[in-house]
Amino acid sequence: MRLRGRKGIREALEKQKDLVVLDPEPYRGKWNDFFGNDHPIYVELGMGKGRFISEMSTRYPEINFIGVDMYDELVRRASEKALAAWEEKQGGQPQNLALVRFNIQQIEQMFADNEIERIFLNFSDPWPKKKHMRRRLTHPAFLRKYIQLCNENGEIHLKTDSTILFEFSLNSFSDMGLQLRNISLNLHGEELRSDLVMTEYEMKFVERDQPIYRCEAMVGNKAVENHRKAMVQALN
Amino acid sequence: MRLRGRKGIREALEKQKDLVVLDPEPYRGKWNDFFGNDHPIYVELGMGKGRFISEMSTRYPEINFIGVDMYDELVRRASEKALAAWEEKQGGQPQNLALVRFNIQQIEQMFADNEIERIFLNFSDPWPKKKHMRRRLTHPAFLRKYIQLCNENGEIHLKTDSTILFEFSLNSFSDMGLQLRNISLNLHGEELRSDLVMTEYEMKFVERDQPIYRCEAMVGNKAVENHRKAMVQALN
Repeated sequence: MRLRGRKGIREALEKQKDLVVLDPEPYRGKWNDFFGNDHPIYVELGMGKGRFISEMSTRYPEINFIGVDMYDELVRRASEKALAAWEEKQGGQPQNLALVRFNIQQIEQMFADNEIERIFLNFSDPWPKKKHMRRRLTHPAFLRKYIQLCNENGEIHLKTDSTILFEFSLNSFSDMGLQLRNISLNLHGEELRSDLVMTEYEMKFVERDQPIYRCEAMVGNKAVENHRKAMVQALN
Repeated sequence: MRLRGRKGIREALEKQKDLVVLDPEPYRGKWNDFFGNDHPIYVELGMGKGRFISEMSTRYPEINFIGVDMYDELVRRASEKALAAWEEKQGGQPQNLALVRFNIQQIEQMFADNEIERIFLNFSDPWPKKKHMRRRLTHPAFLRKYIQLCNENGEIHLKTDSTILFEFSLNSFSDMGLQLRNISLNLHGEELRSDLVMTEYEMKFVERDQPIYRCEAMVGNKAVENHRKAMVQALN
């Protein structure tokens, strides 16, 4: 979805200071001040209309969620979705959620090193042409940034319907030395994974029986070590 | 293909002492004696009718190839294919090839630690039912053996048409801490990879436009280190 701002949207967004952040750079290294606690921070890069991040924030109150997208109109839609989800599920205002308008290209201007614990990439633009490869959000140049920003428990969780993007991402993660986990070539194949929150796109794909790819890449040393221990235990 | 021995086959195989090995255990740790040189050893586990291993042996004379399968009849067919391929391409007898009848379950009785440089798993039986998972040739219990048998340049190269086996294998490699490389979700998608030798199965799948999965897992430290250096160079 490619949307440019419309009149009046900016003014409406500026009023939602507890939820919407139009100028995130001053929060770099200080996101826990925004939330008023030191809970782990999970970030969705490219939140789209915001179903996933809204739903996640109501499900996991002990985590702080930040959804990022580039366009005013998407941030507006996401804020409506978030307010409705919280009203329905928690009966109040979102407490652990920030919706940020920002260009992911400059993500390092938004977060300090080790500030994030998890990054979600859900149905990112696959940029299928080879000449646009560097725009894919799992290009090694992006992964290098994510590795800097993630803490010792850091993980990157990827979901996509694009074979091209998934193949590229698996190689990209591996080439950067990141260990993978929970790789799925047909996420809802055996049964619908209701433990995982679905995005708007995903719901459509699942309706049409199209396969969804998913994987997790471990960035932090502790994440790798914990997984290694679990595997050794499972084998013995 | 499941084939039991037929009369006369065993006798015919016993005569081909330079190519066929029916009792490989005495060669454990001494395969280079069999070949009469110290070239690296590449092994195909489950060679089927032997097209791949025969073709590889004619293409790469500086490598020793060992094809393994469990049934006399497959070893017989593979030996015919090997003799024909060598006659056509090299005009002589196979020099760098052994066709071995053995049960892969006991692979560690056939090779000593560090004796192998590469393992090929081509279109292995996917054993799709969960209760048969331990029979898949990429089960962690098998990978543990392969890791023992491979040297510092060791790699495992996998090709399959099975989504179930490929997904399982990616997770299995990752869970055992093996770094992956050259992951492909549609091997011949863009153009036919004539640099890679095809198996009999593969040729059929390609004719029918069915996708082939492929990946390489690095087992040896040197293999990982060389790849890491290449990646760092590519990024800078």
